[in-house]
Amino acid sequence: MNAVRFLNPAGEARLGTLNDGTIRDAGAAPERGFVASDEAWAQLERAAGPEYHVQDVRLMHPVTPQKILAIGLNYRSHAEESELNVPTVPVVFAKWTSALIGHGEDIVIPREETRPDYEGELAVVIGRRTYRADKATARQAVGGISAFHDVSGRRAQLETPLRQFTLGKSFDTFAPMGPSIAPVEGVDLADIGVRTTVSGEVMQDANTRDLIFSVEDLIVYLSAGLTLEPGDVIATGTPGGVGDSRTPPRYLREGDTVEVYVSGVGTLSNPVRMER
Amino acid sequence: MNAVRFLNPAGEARLGTLNDGTIRDAGAAPERGFVASDEAWAQLERAAGPEYHVQDVRLMHPVTPQKILAIGLNYRSHAEESELNVPTVPVVFAKWTSALIGHGEDIVIPREETRPDYEGELAVVIGRRTYRADKATARQAVGGISAFHDVSGRRAQLETPLRQFTLGKSFDTFAPMGPSIAPVEGVDLADIGVRTTVSGEVMQDANTRDLIFSVEDLIVYLSAGLTLEPGDVIATGTPGGVGDSRTPPRYLREGDTVEVYVSGVGTLSNPVRMER
Repeated sequence: MNAVRFLNPAGEARLGTLNDGTIRDAGAAPERGFVASDEAWAQLERAAGPEYHVQDVRLMHPVTPQKILAIGLNYRSHAEESELNVPTVPVVFAKWTSALIGHGEDIVIPREETRPDYEGELAVVIGRRTYRADKATARQAVGGISAFHDVSGRRAQLETPLRQFTLGKSFDTFAPMGPSIAPVEGVDLADIGVRTTVSGEVMQDANTRDLIFSVEDLIVYLSAGLTLEPGDVIATGTPGGVGDSRTPPRYLREGDTVEVYVSGVGTLSNPVRMER
Repeated sequence: MNAVRFLNPAGEARLGTLNDGTIRDAGAAPERGFVASDEAWAQLERAAGPEYHVQDVRLMHPVTPQKILAIGLNYRSHAEESELNVPTVPVVFAKWTSALIGHGEDIVIPREETRPDYEGELAVVIGRRTYRADKATARQAVGGISAFHDVSGRRAQLETPLRQFTLGKSFDTFAPMGPSIAPVEGVDLADIGVRTTVSGEVMQDANTRDLIFSVEDLIVYLSAGLTLEPGDVIATGTPGGVGDSRTPPRYLREGDTVEVYVSGVGTLSNPVRMER
């Protein structure tokens, strides 16, 4: 039973369950959406509202986290194509939550951004307030998984002094997430397929078994000094195959559609257009 | 008339006005606190609740922004002491909002952080939703000013691959802000004094006339691609004099008190302790 946030026909934000293309209304969505806590999952269990076909409603990004903790260079294949050393500790950066959009919404490339790129990723949604997790218990912090598209403006990311990543990765619409949050029960976090297509062509195809820092490693590292809150999203890093590392580069173009498939979650699909 | 968020004797979060050490209750604080919009200032105008002496209540950070947009190397003196080139475009990074604390609360240094440092800054609070401001109108985006302490764990900031700043600057308690938000009317944003003391010793003493990128420059640059929301905080950068650049370095220690004075706002004071 996956969790979604959606707009019902009256335009109200609701939580719902998603099964086989059918959404069942589970009540009003809190401001932060589906934060993947035990209480949030329990609300879904009681879903007894109207049913909708998933095509008939507008999906929103399932959660509005307090913070998006994004990880760089977490697959060897991407470190190598970026001509950077394989990191010895996680590369951590932020994406601002104002960039979030849902499944189906347009990615809009700002006029100044000449090198817009895709990055498909597994998103881990924190379900439990966590400080100083240890490796044995880190998994208990996870409330669900989702698909995340870390849209990246390489011009802003790489051509600015000190190469701080956040701005070029936080333009409005640069953080598609969804379509749903899948429960973590029964999921092997070290065996999740992640695949990205651009206008139908497979660009990235990987599995979380190839992560340099596992989901549990990341939770241990991040929570040593800062508190993870329910709903917080860890974007676990992208595998090799990004557009900027191709010869010639393959940047996003008007009319592209980018799809990020995560096993157990489904496919997050977003069209691309250029700001005018 | 400055704005504060505080806990009244019943432990409720309230907005209030602050004049000459006296707070007047202006009603329940919204979840985001004082977002410095026209409506927020109008609520303050109608303050008619009980009065408290400022020493008798606990001040909170005045606002919980959607995002903290922090600027690096924005004073020539700090770029020089860091042995880095004066930037040609702003260095932008994020601090996660989970790090925010109010005036008087403890800064807690995580056990792993061997190089904890101070950075006093002018905070600009956005008061109006803004996208693609131009230089002539950028000032209209500003809803108020405050004092901000960009506490910086230099170990995490500088010793990690690719030197992404966010993590080392976002440990819990690493973003003191306050004590109040001052209105922007009549303020010359290019003539604001910023002074930092550590346990009584003046460590940084500067004026925003020395900013490399003015407040208006920053708003133009940041809003070209992302939307600034009411309550968002721009931490405008720190002047020369940080502890890490001194010989010998002057890192924060148990028992220190750091004060950041911003003219028109007042003094933000926070004691330092080490996590056990």
